[in-house]
Amino acid sequence: MAEPLRRRLPLLPLLLLAAGGLRAAERSGGSSSAMEELATEKEAEESHRQDSVSLLTFILLLTLTILTIWLFKHRRVRFLHETGLAMIYGLIVGVILRYGTPSTSGHDKPFSCSQEDRPFTTLLVNVSGKFFEYTLKGEISPGKIHNVEQNDMLRKVTFDPEVFFNILLPPIIFHAGYSLKKRHFFRNLGSILAYAFLGTAVSCFIIGNLMYGVVKLMKLVGQLSDKFYYTDCLLFGAIISATDPVTVLAIFNELHADVDLYALLFGESVLNDAVAIVLSSSIVAYQPTGENTHAFDAAAFFKSVGVFLGIFSGSFMMGAVTGVVTALVTKFTKLHCFPLLETALFFLMSWSTFLLAEACGFTGVVAVLFCGITQAHYTYNNLSVESRSRTKQLFEVLHFLAENFIFSYMGLALFTFQKHIFSPVFIIGAFVAIFLGRAAHIYPLSFLLNLGRRHKISWSFQHMMMFSGLRGAMAFALAIRDTATYSHQMMFSTTLLIVFFTVWIVGGGTTPMLSWLNIRVGVDPDQDPPPTNDSFQVLQGDGQDSAQRNRTKQESAWLFRLWYSFDHNYLKPILTHSGPPLTTTLPSWCGLIARCLTSPQVYDNQEQLREEDSDFILNDGDLTVTYGDTTITANGSSGPHTATTNLDSRRTKSSSEEALERDLGAADHEVTSRGTRLVFPLEYNA
Amino acid sequence: MAEPLRRRLPLLPLLLLAAGGLRAAERSGGSSSAMEELATEKEAEESHRQDSVSLLTFILLLTLTILTIWLFKHRRVRFLHETGLAMIYGLIVGVILRYGTPSTSGHDKPFSCSQEDRPFTTLLVNVSGKFFEYTLKGEISPGKIHNVEQNDMLRKVTFDPEVFFNILLPPIIFHAGYSLKKRHFFRNLGSILAYAFLGTAVSCFIIGNLMYGVVKLMKLVGQLSDKFYYTDCLLFGAIISATDPVTVLAIFNELHADVDLYALLFGESVLNDAVAIVLSSSIVAYQPTGENTHAFDAAAFFKSVGVFLGIFSGSFMMGAVTGVVTALVTKFTKLHCFPLLETALFFLMSWSTFLLAEACGFTGVVAVLFCGITQAHYTYNNLSVESRSRTKQLFEVLHFLAENFIFSYMGLALFTFQKHIFSPVFIIGAFVAIFLGRAAHIYPLSFLLNLGRRHKISWSFQHMMMFSGLRGAMAFALAIRDTATYSHQMMFSTTLLIVFFTVWIVGGGTTPMLSWLNIRVGVDPDQDPPPTNDSFQVLQGDGQDSAQRNRTKQESAWLFRLWYSFDHNYLKPILTHSGPPLTTTLPSWCGLIARCLTSPQVYDNQEQLREEDSDFILNDGDLTVTYGDTTITANGSSGPHTATTNLDSRRTKSSSEEALERDLGAADHEVTSRGTRLVFPLEYNA
Repeated sequence: MAEPLRRRLPLLPLLLLAAGGLRAAERSGGSSSAMEELATEKEAEESHRQDSVSLLTFILLLTLTILTIWLFKHRRVRFLHETGLAMIYGLIVGVILRYGTPSTSGHDKPFSCSQEDRPFTTLLVNVSGKFFEYTLKGEISPGKIHNVEQNDMLRKVTFDPEVFFNILLPPIIFHAGYSLKKRHFFRNLGSILAYAFLGTAVSCFIIGNLMYGVVKLMKLVGQLSDKFYYTDCLLFGAIISATDPVTVLAIFNELHADVDLYALLFGESVLNDAVAIVLSSSIVAYQPTGENTHAFDAAAFFKSVGVFLGIFSGSFMMGAVTGVVTALVTKFTKLHCFPLLETALFFLMSWSTFLLAEACGFTGVVAVLFCGITQAHYTYNNLSVESRSRTKQLFEVLHFLAENFIFSYMGLALFTFQKHIFSPVFIIGAFVAIFLGRAAHIYPLSFLLNLGRRHKISWSFQHMMMFSGLRGAMAFALAIRDTATYSHQMMFSTTLLIVFFTVWIVGGGTTPMLSWLNIRVGVDPDQDPPPTNDSFQVLQGDGQDSAQRNRTKQESAWLFRLWYSFDHNYLKPILTHSGPPLTTTLPSWCGLIARCLTSPQVYDNQEQLREEDSDFILNDGDLTVTYGDTTITANGSSGPHTATTNLDSRRTKSSSEEALERDLGAADHEVTSRGTRLVFPLEYNA
Repeated sequence: MAEPLRRRLPLLPLLLLAAGGLRAAERSGGSSSAMEELATEKEAEESHRQDSVSLLTFILLLTLTILTIWLFKHRRVRFLHETGLAMIYGLIVGVILRYGTPSTSGHDKPFSCSQEDRPFTTLLVNVSGKFFEYTLKGEISPGKIHNVEQNDMLRKVTFDPEVFFNILLPPIIFHAGYSLKKRHFFRNLGSILAYAFLGTAVSCFIIGNLMYGVVKLMKLVGQLSDKFYYTDCLLFGAIISATDPVTVLAIFNELHADVDLYALLFGESVLNDAVAIVLSSSIVAYQPTGENTHAFDAAAFFKSVGVFLGIFSGSFMMGAVTGVVTALVTKFTKLHCFPLLETALFFLMSWSTFLLAEACGFTGVVAVLFCGITQAHYTYNNLSVESRSRTKQLFEVLHFLAENFIFSYMGLALFTFQKHIFSPVFIIGAFVAIFLGRAAHIYPLSFLLNLGRRHKISWSFQHMMMFSGLRGAMAFALAIRDTATYSHQMMFSTTLLIVFFTVWIVGGGTTPMLSWLNIRVGVDPDQDPPPTNDSFQVLQGDGQDSAQRNRTKQESAWLFRLWYSFDHNYLKPILTHSGPPLTTTLPSWCGLIARCLTSPQVYDNQEQLREEDSDFILNDGDLTVTYGDTTITANGSSGPHTATTNLDSRRTKSSSEEALERDLGAADHEVTSRGTRLVFPLEYNA
C-alpha cells in the first residue's frame, strides 16, 4: 500500500500553478561563484531545451497524425482509426527515443543526507550560508537511484500520470456530455443506466475474481515475484471495465449505422467511464481494519459502497449545479449580445465544475460529464447562435487534441515507460477475463432488459456490443495513475497491451463485423425503420399518426415521462427561454415567483413561441449548411424541410404529451448540428 | 547578480510536463507506518484542496469581470475598461486574502541540513532506509525563512512568473499578430518600425539614465538599502518601455476613431513588446568582463547589441518559417474539407513556433508574433470558411481569458505578493521618467518621420500617442520575471503601480482626450477623410480616379513597393491559392517548378480568379452578417456593396500596380471580419 495518496487524491489540473511547479523544481538557485553559475546555467539551458524538444516531439506526432488522418479520409481508408494511427506513430517515436538517444547522465550527482523522521514535504538546505528550498518529489526504490540520473530524454517524455487525469480527460469527457445525442440517449436511458452501473460492477467483479485466480496460478508456477492482493485484482477489474468505443462509434457515425445501437454504446461508454473512475476510488478506499488487510471485511466493504454512492452523487450534483447556474446566468443576462463574453463565461463555468468538485473531494471528471449534459440540455438553448458554434467548436478541438495526444502517448509509453512488467500468463489471463467479463456484462443484462423492453435488443446488437468493448483513454489514465508497486506496474503494462489490441483489431474489424451481423447502415436517424426489422422501432417525432403517437406513450417508461413533464413544465421554463410560461404550469399561489422566473420571450405569445422554436430549428438547419461539419451537411440538408413540416403540424397541438413528441423530434434536429463526432463522412454514397 | 538564470532562460510553457512537476513536487512519498501515511495524506488532501480553491478564486474573478463587463457594455459605460475592472476585482480579492485568511502554518516544519558545496538541483534523502527525491525550488533570504511556512494560501495564489511568459503571453501576442489590420499597418509600416525600434531604444535609454539619477539621489539621501546598478536601471527602462494601449485601442475600435492613428498605436505596441523583451534579454546578457562589473564596457555593449540582433532576427525567422510551412501544408493538402483537422493543425503549428524558438534559444513570444502575422497573411487565405472563423474565435477566447487573467492577477499581486518594496522617491522618479521617456520617444521621432512622410502625423495625433503610452501585461510579465534582488523587487512594485495608474487614468481619460484633441471618431475605414482634415489622407483602395491612383504610387515607399510586388508575384502564388500564376511571373527556365507550385485554381483562369477573389470578399461580408461580432456586423453591412463595386471596376484592370491598390482594399475588407478587438460597439449611433 505504498503511495495510496497518488491513487486517491487527483491533484488538480493546475495548468498555471503547475507550470510554476515545474519551473520551480527545475531552476537552480544562484550561487556565489561565477564559474559555478555558468555551469548551472548551461545545465538549466540544456534542460529547458530538452523540455521544448520533448513537447515538440508530441506536436510533431500530432501533426503527422492529422496529416495521415486526412490522407486516410481522402483515400477513404476505414480500417485504421486516427487513434490507432496516433498509437502507431507514438510507438515508432518511442522506439527511436528508447534505442536512438544516448543516455545522458545528469551533471548533478544526487546528494544524500540522512533524516531520522518521516520525510518532510519541504526541505531547507544551508549552503555556505545561503538557504535553499527543496520540495519532495517522491520515493525512489533503492535499486533505481541510478535511473534518476540516466536518460533525461526518456524521463522528459514520460509525463506525470495526473496530467492525463486532470488536463487531458476533462475536455474529452465534457465533450462527450456536451455532444450527447439527447433524443436517442433519453429513449434508451433505462438500458444505458443498467449497462453502465450494473454492467460495469458485474464486469469489474468478474474480471477481478478471474484475475485473482490467474494470480494464484502464477504464484503456484512461480511467475509472481512480489505481492499481488485481491484488492489489486478488483482494481484491475475496475480499471479495465471502462470501455471507450470511440473507434467503433466513429465508424458508426460514418456509415450511419443504427442510431439506437449507437445510443446504447455511446451512452454506456460515457457513463461507465464515470462509474469506473468512482469504482476504482472506492476500491482504493476499501481499507479493512486491523491486521486483516487485503481480505474481505464487511464493514470496509459497505464503507466502500458508501464512498461510491457519496462520490458519485456528489459529483453528479456538482456538475448539474454548475450547469444550472450557467443556464440561469445566460438566461437572465443579455450576455448573448456579446458572444465572446458568453463563450468565455461558458468555458470558465465548465472548468470551475472540475475545480469545485476536486475542492470538495469529489471526482472532477464525473462532475464535468454531468455538467456537459446539463449545459447541452439547458444552457445551450440560451446561447447566441455564434456562441453555440463557438463552444461546440472549442470543445471539439480540445477533445480532438487531448484524445490524440493520449493515444500518441500510449504508443510512446510502450517503449519509454521504464517500469514495465510484462507477464505472459497475466496478459493471456487478462484477455480471457475481459472477454468473459464483457460477455457476462452484455448477454445476461440484455436478457433481463429485454424482459422489460418493448423493442428488444436483438442478438446482432448484443454481439456488436460485445465486440465493441474496446478499452481506451480512460482505462489507460486509470492504470497509469499509480505505477508504484509491482502489481500496479504489471496491471499498467497489461492495460496498455489490451488498449493496443482492442483499438487496432476491434477498430479495424468494425466494418466487416457490421456487415457480418447484418446491422443496417445508412440509416437516416429521422426515418422509421423498415417494419421487417426486428430491432428497435424508431420513435417518430414529427408527422406521426395517432397509432404511432399511442405507441410513443407506451414506449416511454413512466419514470422517464415523469422526469420529462417535470423538465418540460418547470425546469426548461426556469432555466431557458423555451417551454410553457411558468405562470401556467405552477400553482397560482406561486404567481410572483413564476412571473419573475419566466422570461419575457415566453410571455409574449405561446403560439408565437412555438414558431420561434421551429425557427430556431430552421436556423439550425441553415447554420448546418453553412458552417457545420461535413457530417452535419449530410444530415442538415433535410433539416429545413422537416422543420417546415413541424411548423404546420404543430399549430394544432398544445398538450404536454405532444410537446414531448415534438421535443424529442426537435432535440434530434438540434443535435444533428451539435452532436458531431470525430469522423467525417466520405461521401460514401457518391 | 543572483539568479540570472531566471531572467535569461524562460523555461518553456510545459502545461503538461509542468503539471507533473507540481504534482511531483506536492505529493508525499509513502512511509512505513499507517499513521504517518494518514497524516501525510491529510496534508496532501489539504494542499490539493487549496490548489483548487486558489484556481477557483481566479475563475470567480474572471466570471465576475465578465458579468460586470457585460453590464458596463449594456449600460454603455465607457470610462472603465474590462482590464481595469479585472484589476479592481483582483485588488479586492487580494485584500481579502491578505487580511481575511488566517496564516496557516505548514504542518511540516522545514528541515535544515548543511551542505558545503553549491546547491544541487536534486537531493536524495535517506529516511529510515527509504530514499526520497527532492528538487531545488529556489533560494530563500534568511529573513524570510518563516514566510515559507506561513500563509499557504497567499503562496498558492502567487504563481510562478514564468507562467505569465510561457503560458499567458503567447496567446495574447499571437492574437495581436493574427488580427493585425493589414492595410493600415503596412501603409504605416515605416513609421511603425521607427517608433517600435528606435523609439523603444530611445525610451529605454532615457528612462534608464533618468532612473540612474534617481537612484544616485536616493543613495545620497539614504533611501537605498541595497545595491542598485546601472544595468538594473537600463533593465527597468526596457521593461517599462513596452506599451500596451489595449484600453485605448478598445475605445478607438468602439468609437471608430481614426484608422491610421489606430494602426500607428497598435503596430507600435505590438512590435515594441517584441523589442522590449529582446532588449531586456540583451541587457541581462550584458556582462562586462573582469572586475569592471556593472560599468560600461564597449566589448560587452557590442556583444549585447549582437545578442539583440541575433535573437530578434532569429525569432523573426522562426515565426515566419513555421507560418510559411503551415501555409504550404494547408495549400497542398485538401485539409480544408475537414475543418476540425485544419484548425487542430493550425493550432499545433502555431504553438510549435513557440517551442521551436525556445528550443533554439530564441524568444518564443517574438516568434509567435511573427508567426501570427504570417498566418494571417498567407495561411488564412488557404483555410476553409469554417476554419477561418474557428481559428479566429479560438484565439480570441484564449486571448481574452489570458489578458483578463493577467490583469486580475496584477490586482491580486499588489496585496498577495510578499516581496514588495515601495520607495516613494523611486516611484515618483519613475513616473516622471516614463513621461519624459515617452515624450522623447514620440515628438522628436514624429518630427523626423514627418520630414519624410507625405501625410504628416499631426500634433493632435502626437499628443494622443504620447497620452496612450499605457503599460500593461508585457511590462508586468517582464518585471515579475525576476524579483530575486532588492533592485528588482523595487522595480516590480513600481511597475505594478505604473500599470495601475496608466490603465485606470489613461484608460478612463481616452474619450475626453479624443474630443479635446479634436480627433474625429465614427470614421468608416473605407471612406476618404474630409479634405479639410489635416491629418493623414486615407488611401482609397477602390473606385479611385487616376489622380488618386497616382498619389497611391507616390505614397508607398519604394521598399514597401518592392516587397509588395515580390509578395504579390511570388510569395502569394507559392503559399496561397491567390495571385497570378507563377508560370507568368517566374522566368521561363523555372517552368517546371512554377507549374508544380501553382495551385490548379490559379491555372484555370486568371480573370475568373479575380472574380473569385471578389466573391471571397462577398462571402466574407456575408459571413460577417451572419456570424461576426457586433463590430463586424457594423462594418460588414457595407461589405457586400463595396465588393460588388470592386467586381465591376476590376475587370478592366490587370497590372501589378493596380493589384496592389485592389489588394490593399481587399485586405481591408478581409480584415473587417477578422481584426475584431475585445470591444463590442454599443450602437452608439442608435
